[in-house]
Amino acid sequence: MTEAPAKQVPTRNLESWIYFLRSHSAITRELSAQLQREHGLTLNDYEVLLNLKHAEGGMMRRVDLAESVVLTASGITRLLDGLERAGLVCKETCSSDARVSYAKLTDEGAAKLREAAGTHLRGVEELFLGRYSGSELATLAELLSRLPVTGKVASETCSA
Amino acid sequence: MTEAPAKQVPTRNLESWIYFLRSHSAITRELSAQLQREHGLTLNDYEVLLNLKHAEGGMMRRVDLAESVVLTASGITRLLDGLERAGLVCKETCSSDARVSYAKLTDEGAAKLREAAGTHLRGVEELFLGRYSGSELATLAELLSRLPVTGKVASETCSA
Repeated sequence: MTEAPAKQVPTRNLESWIYFLRSHSAITRELSAQLQREHGLTLNDYEVLLNLKHAEGGMMRRVDLAESVVLTASGITRLLDGLERAGLVCKETCSSDARVSYAKLTDEGAAKLREAAGTHLRGVEELFLGRYSGSELATLAELLSRLPVTGKVASETCSA
Repeated sequence: MTEAPAKQVPTRNLESWIYFLRSHSAITRELSAQLQREHGLTLNDYEVLLNLKHAEGGMMRRVDLAESVVLTASGITRLLDGLERAGLVCKETCSSDARVSYAKLTDEGAAKLREAAGTHLRGVEELFLGRYSGSELATLAELLSRLPVTGKVASETCSA
């Protein structure tokens, strides 16, 4: 289907959109670099460990984990393979349906997450929260709350 | 290195940060789904075509393209392979240094980008810009402009 040319779209101030994209990219890269440097984890690794920690029984279906970190199936496989090799998660299968595969946080994984949480939260403070006053943060939260949100990333920011 | 526990980090209102992450994830997923449905392109494909369009001679080094869309080297290879198969970009090598490999936008790629731009900009309007008044957009831009930004994603939002 051939789309109409861009000029039919209302031209509005795109500046906020550009900052939104660019800042997200810069901040997540830097958070990931900090975690990698200090704990050998990427930001996606961290998010997976955190999601598992907050899941019932410390385990989640692999497909749901993939959804929670915006990874494709092959991406989550690679990521979980790395975490398994490091002993931070282990594989579980469902007793009633062997086709369903789970990832489960190990004690070592929980300990690693606690270690990494300090680094991560300091990064979030430095790169994001610390740039604003309390009332500015409230304004920003109100504005951003009008945007669509994903349902499955509830726990990125928990302190583990 | 063992990190300090999270309680040493100042606890501030994390709400804006959570909305920032969740909305970015939801919006980029939906923009990518729209482009895929209507034009067979992912958001990363679109961004690569757009970056090439705005680059001198319609071409960029593959490593710089990877940087511009936050992809790893293997990610950019897969992505460019797909765009090459579709005839939207072609490979070029540097005449003075054969080790340097470029991707170049084809005429078909430029046409595809023009088609897709309408869809993309309507999506940005629907999912982001349209949620705010003009003065709210200005406030949001001012707040977001205080965050670190990446330098190489200048052109995501151009109308191509």
